[in-house]
Amino acid sequence: MNAKNEALQAWMNESNVDVSIATSKYNVFYLSGYYSEPHERLLAYVSFKNQQPILLCPAMEVHDAKNAAPHAEVIGYLDTDDSMELLSNEIKKRSSQFAVVALEKEHLHVLRFESLLKAFPETKWVSLEDKLQMLRMVKDEEEIKKIQKACELADFAVEVGVKTLREGITEMEVIAEIEYEVKKKGVREMSFSTMVLAGPNAASPHGTPGAAKVKKGDLVLFDLGVIFEGYCSDITRTVAFGDISEEQAKIYETVKNAEMKAIEACRIGKTCADIDNIARNYIKDAGYSAYFPHRLGHGLGLSVHEFPSLTGHNQVPLEKGMCFTIEPGIYVPNVAGVRIEDDIVVTANEPLVLTKYPKELQIII
Amino acid sequence: MNAKNEALQAWMNESNVDVSIATSKYNVFYLSGYYSEPHERLLAYVSFKNQQPILLCPAMEVHDAKNAAPHAEVIGYLDTDDSMELLSNEIKKRSSQFAVVALEKEHLHVLRFESLLKAFPETKWVSLEDKLQMLRMVKDEEEIKKIQKACELADFAVEVGVKTLREGITEMEVIAEIEYEVKKKGVREMSFSTMVLAGPNAASPHGTPGAAKVKKGDLVLFDLGVIFEGYCSDITRTVAFGDISEEQAKIYETVKNAEMKAIEACRIGKTCADIDNIARNYIKDAGYSAYFPHRLGHGLGLSVHEFPSLTGHNQVPLEKGMCFTIEPGIYVPNVAGVRIEDDIVVTANEPLVLTKYPKELQIII
Repeated sequence: MNAKNEALQAWMNESNVDVSIATSKYNVFYLSGYYSEPHERLLAYVSFKNQQPILLCPAMEVHDAKNAAPHAEVIGYLDTDDSMELLSNEIKKRSSQFAVVALEKEHLHVLRFESLLKAFPETKWVSLEDKLQMLRMVKDEEEIKKIQKACELADFAVEVGVKTLREGITEMEVIAEIEYEVKKKGVREMSFSTMVLAGPNAASPHGTPGAAKVKKGDLVLFDLGVIFEGYCSDITRTVAFGDISEEQAKIYETVKNAEMKAIEACRIGKTCADIDNIARNYIKDAGYSAYFPHRLGHGLGLSVHEFPSLTGHNQVPLEKGMCFTIEPGIYVPNVAGVRIEDDIVVTANEPLVLTKYPKELQIII
Repeated sequence: MNAKNEALQAWMNESNVDVSIATSKYNVFYLSGYYSEPHERLLAYVSFKNQQPILLCPAMEVHDAKNAAPHAEVIGYLDTDDSMELLSNEIKKRSSQFAVVALEKEHLHVLRFESLLKAFPETKWVSLEDKLQMLRMVKDEEEIKKIQKACELADFAVEVGVKTLREGITEMEVIAEIEYEVKKKGVREMSFSTMVLAGPNAASPHGTPGAAKVKKGDLVLFDLGVIFEGYCSDITRTVAFGDISEEQAKIYETVKNAEMKAIEACRIGKTCADIDNIARNYIKDAGYSAYFPHRLGHGLGLSVHEFPSLTGHNQVPLEKGMCFTIEPGIYVPNVAGVRIEDDIVVTANEPLVLTKYPKELQIII
């Protein structure tokens, strides 16, 4: 038995969904407990209202999949099989009911969809993702503990990075040091490619690190995350290497205050839009409205980007157990790039801030 | 002007395709020169028969995208925009012809497809991917040079890994050392999560490394790759840590011979299936047929898995400039896991083997 699959089955019975087909590695892991990176191969977890779920995977993964998901019937396929045809046939074997099938519409691609359309021409296709996003959005205690551990490792990684800074070191060398120290702690994967951006590069909100050397007067931006037992963290800190200008310092303080005000507001009863607006209005009042071109934050968990999305338009109310980033930034070309990001959990009272690396402006001499 | 977009336009004119929409980061990079990891956001490169292409990206990337793709019209969107609606509107602004539109059917997801179906209800959707896969399958000189450089770095990475082996070191510690040394050489990203698998773990063809310690009598498998200027390498080597059994040694020699025979056969005039069969039959004759559950290899380039696929069913003939892996493996639970993998390029004469780390059985004392 598997509690998460049972929660899904309960929804299927309520909503009259006959079959659910999860295909993203995150949702397959969430429902089955089996984690795998299938690349372009098919990985699918099929739930029925009242029957044992199927876990379909490449033949070479069957042994591992059975160990990780003993509650499911594991079916392997060879690279020479038509895996989608096999999937459709296995569904038909188990059930004559497939009037309504839920799919990951933001994951399943057009070609596989065309295969399902052929096998089930009369079926109505609904979104499975919405339901799973909602289930995943609210974390249980065990999940929060894993994210907390991922955040501790992210704090450590930033600490390593800041300590590594010296005149002339390249962005890539700093990244190598960070990842080396983090991996020695047993970390298998970062949440995404670690970013260390110095000076002008930091003024690009999603810039690409390279051979640029750290030099006096630079703001240096670290954006990184760690995966711990499948769960992600995501932190950004910006520090000054040597003295910086008055305007750079003003931008830093503006971002920091916007971030802290937004965090403080993360209470049950507020909406995602409320929180985005608090940071955005603060930055607007400081005159930098045009230089904050992205949303305030995003949920995180098994994926580094999940629900809820903190935009000015998202009226989803905050709930206990939601976990997301707060990450305002100001990027003024040739002047400064500053972003500060923390991961927080909504609780019955004040928000729990999981990332703890200091935010006071650090000037590294 | 952009040679790769022009090759695509030539195909569009021949095949009567009015609009092409590339959406995967690899194909957008291939066509535009702009590389970005958009996560769940939309990134799209739209080609017309006779007009300037569009590059649609998040607003915060517009500056970088313009620098990388000066030939395209770069259009940014905010997180609060409906990016698919914007895309459809921009296409309608530029052209009244959209009877046939080519899509990346193995990338575009169902939800975005539903948005296009709504905007263009009369359009016929054909595969863009097939054409791009065919264009990308044959590499030009410049691309081969990049893959070659990525392979040199992969050789170096295996060398670091083998040198790091000692009694009691964990798989993760070996990985940390490898990636540290590789990143110090300026490498930004590995092609995929580096795998180091010791003893029983190596007997799982796509096992997950962890805290397992290397001990005497283990076969240790390294599977890793490096990205150099967007292009991937992918190498596997298996070494013995201390003395191994006669059967383990027999399995090693079987894999090595199967691999070398398959490489030697990679000539113009052969098909992908021919090459797969050579290795598979050799392994079958040695009695290990049931323990080689995956295809022989896969193309590589911008993506670590691309065309051609080396399976027993793929009748695609080898062409000059094709670049792919040859990677037979035998995995006998509780006995041995061995895989040996090289990256090769088809030439007018004998195949060029880009990965050069030795394949003779190494026994690390």
